Amino acid sequence: MAPKYTLHYFDVTALGEPIRFLFAYGNIKWEDIRYDDDQFEKVKSKMPFGQMPVLHVDDKIYAQSTAISRYLAKQVGLSGKDDLENLLIDQAVDLFHDFRQKIGDWFYDPIPASKAAKVAQLKDHFPFYLNKFEQIVKENNGFLVNGKLTWADVFFVAPLNYFKYINKRDFLEGYPLLQELVKKVESTPAIASYIAKRPPGGRPGA
Amino acid sequence: MAPKYTLHYFDVTALGEPIRFLFAYGNIKWEDIRYDDDQFEKVKSKMPFGQMPVLHVDDKIYAQSTAISRYLAKQVGLSGKDDLENLLIDQAVDLFHDFRQKIGDWFYDPIPASKAAKVAQLKDHFPFYLNKFEQIVKENNGFLVNGKLTWADVFFVAPLNYFKYINKRDFLEGYPLLQELVKKVESTPAIASYIAKRPPGGRPGA
Repeated sequence: MAPKYTLHYFDVTALGEPIRFLFAYGNIKWEDIRYDDDQFEKVKSKMPFGQMPVLHVDDKIYAQSTAISRYLAKQVGLSGKDDLENLLIDQAVDLFHDFRQKIGDWFYDPIPASKAAKVAQLKDHFPFYLNKFEQIVKENNGFLVNGKLTWADVFFVAPLNYFKYINKRDFLEGYPLLQELVKKVESTPAIASYIAKRPPGGRPGA
Repeated sequence: MAPKYTLHYFDVTALGEPIRFLFAYGNIKWEDIRYDDDQFEKVKSKMPFGQMPVLHVDDKIYAQSTAISRYLAKQVGLSGKDDLENLLIDQAVDLFHDFRQKIGDWFYDPIPASKAAKVAQLKDHFPFYLNKFEQIVKENNGFLVNGKLTWADVFFVAPLNYFKYINKRDFLEGYPLLQELVKKVESTPAIASYIAKRPPGGRPGA
């Protein structure tokens, strides 16, 4: 019997959305429990590391969005064909983390002086990372790894809405290959079907 | 013929050391090129993502310490026995990243007001993460995953010197199971043999 999957995450895309995309891609049923900030505060201490996403697989609990995504990718056939292809996938995923952490460090910084300094740095970080990704997609025939859809593409595309939302702009403007990558992932039939039905999110557009 | 491996990293332990431990553990020969800050500035633009560690495998170049470590772990037999065990390993590795990023965010913050605020937060972060890890090791019979050595243990132990060095204290005091884990990894014969011969580091103790 297939395991029973329950995903616990905020009612936004962000780090939960790659997991939802992977479930959708694999036509795997999952319960999609969405929290607002107040609801999360009440259950935070029960989460393994005080964070979400958290995935229940039957009666076992797992945390960490990347670890969960890598596991599900393997189940739905979006891993690499061998160890070196998995290294390329992991490398792209970790570069995406470096990028999104720069955005998050700025957005969640509670100290005005420090936040202002980070806005200035972001002006360099955006072109640095986006040029790298654009170049990687150019060298890999329209995908992040070896000219075919892997979970690196899903992991890059799925949370983007949220990062655009907190930046209040579409930072992919001027990066045509990355824009095409978004379209490719989001128009994959099973993923497109999920997107058409997904809730609008607690913070619309996020 | 075995591939030719060349590792490029700073002359410290930190994020390069798990890779060196894994090579040592697998009795794999590698060229260990070590940079000081000035030497790195000269080659930075040639590194794929402007960062190190970088690993050459024959004529191919790979970046990202975690991605490289996961790949090498597979080659030397320190991966999980199945997908769910790999999920547990990845989960522990990602929790370690959350922890070390809190330390790094503080240490490398150039803004005094922000840095002071982070020192205060670190007083909570240290017990939070170290208690989690101590508990995980307790539940897993002395290791991070399923009572046996995996690359999660190596990834936790290898860079610790550096984080102790920048904190100027042994933050594992009061965490006996984590201290034992360090001893277990560092006394693994092939790793112990590497440690006995390794360079003292550009910043001794780091």
